[in-house]
Amino acid sequence: MPQSPLQLSKLASRTKDQPISLFMKMAIETPGLISLAAGLVDEPSLPVAEIRETFDGLFANPPAARAALQYGTTEGYLPLRQKLLERYAAEDGLSPDSLPFSVDDVLITNGSQQLLYIVSEALLDPGDIVITEAPSYFVFHSVLTSHGAEVLGVPMDDHGMRTDLLETMLLRLEQTGKLDRVKLLYTVDYFQNPSGLSLAPERRRHLLELARRFSKKHRILILEDAAYRDLRYDGADVRSIKCLDTTNSSVVYTSTFSKPCSPGVRVGFGILPHDLMIPAHRIKGNHDFGSANLNQHLAYQMLQSGRYDSHLKDLRAAYVAKRDAMLESLQAAFREWPGVKWAKPAGGMYCWLRFPADVQTGPDSPLMKEALREGVLYVPGQFCHVADMTGKLATNEIRLCFGVATVDQIREGVRRLAKAAKRLTSLQGPVEDREAVVA
Amino acid sequence: MPQSPLQLSKLASRTKDQPISLFMKMAIETPGLISLAAGLVDEPSLPVAEIRETFDGLFANPPAARAALQYGTTEGYLPLRQKLLERYAAEDGLSPDSLPFSVDDVLITNGSQQLLYIVSEALLDPGDIVITEAPSYFVFHSVLTSHGAEVLGVPMDDHGMRTDLLETMLLRLEQTGKLDRVKLLYTVDYFQNPSGLSLAPERRRHLLELARRFSKKHRILILEDAAYRDLRYDGADVRSIKCLDTTNSSVVYTSTFSKPCSPGVRVGFGILPHDLMIPAHRIKGNHDFGSANLNQHLAYQMLQSGRYDSHLKDLRAAYVAKRDAMLESLQAAFREWPGVKWAKPAGGMYCWLRFPADVQTGPDSPLMKEALREGVLYVPGQFCHVADMTGKLATNEIRLCFGVATVDQIREGVRRLAKAAKRLTSLQGPVEDREAVVA
Repeated sequence: MPQSPLQLSKLASRTKDQPISLFMKMAIETPGLISLAAGLVDEPSLPVAEIRETFDGLFANPPAARAALQYGTTEGYLPLRQKLLERYAAEDGLSPDSLPFSVDDVLITNGSQQLLYIVSEALLDPGDIVITEAPSYFVFHSVLTSHGAEVLGVPMDDHGMRTDLLETMLLRLEQTGKLDRVKLLYTVDYFQNPSGLSLAPERRRHLLELARRFSKKHRILILEDAAYRDLRYDGADVRSIKCLDTTNSSVVYTSTFSKPCSPGVRVGFGILPHDLMIPAHRIKGNHDFGSANLNQHLAYQMLQSGRYDSHLKDLRAAYVAKRDAMLESLQAAFREWPGVKWAKPAGGMYCWLRFPADVQTGPDSPLMKEALREGVLYVPGQFCHVADMTGKLATNEIRLCFGVATVDQIREGVRRLAKAAKRLTSLQGPVEDREAVVA
Repeated sequence: MPQSPLQLSKLASRTKDQPISLFMKMAIETPGLISLAAGLVDEPSLPVAEIRETFDGLFANPPAARAALQYGTTEGYLPLRQKLLERYAAEDGLSPDSLPFSVDDVLITNGSQQLLYIVSEALLDPGDIVITEAPSYFVFHSVLTSHGAEVLGVPMDDHGMRTDLLETMLLRLEQTGKLDRVKLLYTVDYFQNPSGLSLAPERRRHLLELARRFSKKHRILILEDAAYRDLRYDGADVRSIKCLDTTNSSVVYTSTFSKPCSPGVRVGFGILPHDLMIPAHRIKGNHDFGSANLNQHLAYQMLQSGRYDSHLKDLRAAYVAKRDAMLESLQAAFREWPGVKWAKPAGGMYCWLRFPADVQTGPDSPLMKEALREGVLYVPGQFCHVADMTGKLATNEIRLCFGVATVDQIREGVRRLAKAAKRLTSLQGPVEDREAVVA
């Protein structure tokens, strides 16, 4: 019997495969390939002992274990939400009592990814506009495209998103009658995926001021993705944008245990303006009634016992070594090509390389082909960009991740990348006319 | 500064609070109240020892533990998907090699709820029609309403959905030009929530035949929710609708570990037609990149070690005792009122009571008020119904759950319910004109 065709929803027909999927498959299937592409975390430092001890404690107390194995609430385990609020307040140098929000505005999700998804669902209709950094976190771009949103990118420099250019963009949108479609300003403001850059304090204030000033017929929200905040290696922590939002009305803050603790545990959270928490909570209920209760009890006990913090200390040390290995290797490998630029990431897992404008880095580029021949994989920078207002897409950048590869693999991977690049004659010309990595 | 209002998405504005939420809150906040409402599982029989032993094994092997704590794949842990496929085949008396689908069509989700959500997202646009049993699983109704779908209910009898009436409905939809909007036929075909009834084998065949016959311009899918299948107490297992779908094109099958093992672990799965698996996989990637890897390793080890099966045996025994306590109590309590009817559930966690048509059971009904005064909570049956084509809504039924209450609480709860009902004079008249619970 011939089958009549499936009629998918509009959402499904807008939902594309992640371009990176093919790359991840390639990385797994190619023996000897060093992947500096995958955003996985350092495997040797996963907190096996800490989690085992935590489970030992939990399961030694059958009533507590049973409570963890039963359904939880949609919003999440109350002691965990309280603990997260306390930690958030401490990081921003505030007392929990002084916060303009409470545990009632904290939602536990399956990693921060699900929080990003739910916020998108709660806010976006097709044709709405979301403004992100350029480059930005490409998985979130997919979510936005799936919901029919238009994504506009604002260039970055060493201090993060150029909020002056955001202001210009918002003014232009207002002039062209499109401001009514702007719903969300998205920033990964700590050690951004993919650039490794953070948003400077004065720009945080400017960003919030812009969100408020341009909130005319409706409120424009800031989605502050602090997924990498705990992975700081240099300097002092910077206060969140959220803490500037003294009425809890303009900023959604999200973070996760995936990166600093264990992605396999899949616990993230959001702190939401109260009037967004209500629909987000309902949508979360429809998704899954709440994240796995067992994992939330685990996360709480890890925080409560101090095991999370002691693990974090070890983890930071492991990542500093990897980051430094990557920076040293880049320095050694590209010293002959001053047109290749990168910034030192003060945290996170990513390093962003910009080649001269005439060096293409895309999936079908000569550089990619040479790199694969040498046995190293990177993420083409264009995956992290959307075309700008003139239709241009930056195609000369790459994302390198020092999360999952070992120090030796990082050194060897960068060496291979440089060897591949060296074969491209375009890198061997004069460098004067080449742009710097960040303005 | 006065805040401009949030402009929520159309989806968010369609997403309502679960009417049951208020009830659950009431149950938690009222001391001494016996809840026969909440669909939680039996807490004493949660598999604390089995899960502890499984974790002990996993964490004794650090490389295996690290693999479980790292990111998994979007579709889920391959050995678990293989094991689920083998179990599915065995339950339907088939060899895994003979199945018209493979592990590539198995998607792991956060309970079966997330599978229901993703399938809805992949298929439904506002105005589409989903046909369910009447009564049906009200949480799924909320998901459907959130996506703008129209829900139509087909009456049930002791053999489950009246597929003859479904056929009439489909013919009428075709005549009125609405067949093009019908996307999904939803059935909880094993010990349904809320009725406790199962779909008879000949009706399974009829249902599939109808889905195929009415698939004209596009394919109408059956969503077979087998969440309670493993919780059978009487009789032999019935083969799934899925196994009749020899081309893997018409049936989505879903089940879960939540009910038969642990809701706090939150592992469910779906087996999908291949052309639906592709968009569902993408949507799942956007939701959360895949369910918690640790929990999937746990579920796999529970199945592989036999601990799941031995637990299931104990669990069934516990539930049989509870079900029997509920049936005996109902028999004893309502023997004076032959107009009050219920069927014996052969599995699952629910028992469905139908009062005479003149006894209202709604949240503001005299019966509810009396029941709360006596200290017992039930789910008003109308929460599980949608208005039929004539706009009528059944308001004389209730759902009782024997999952979470103890045997003693079940006995006392039913006694209180009968006492409440006894006060309503409407129950004390002649019974001749009262309808039977199931036609």
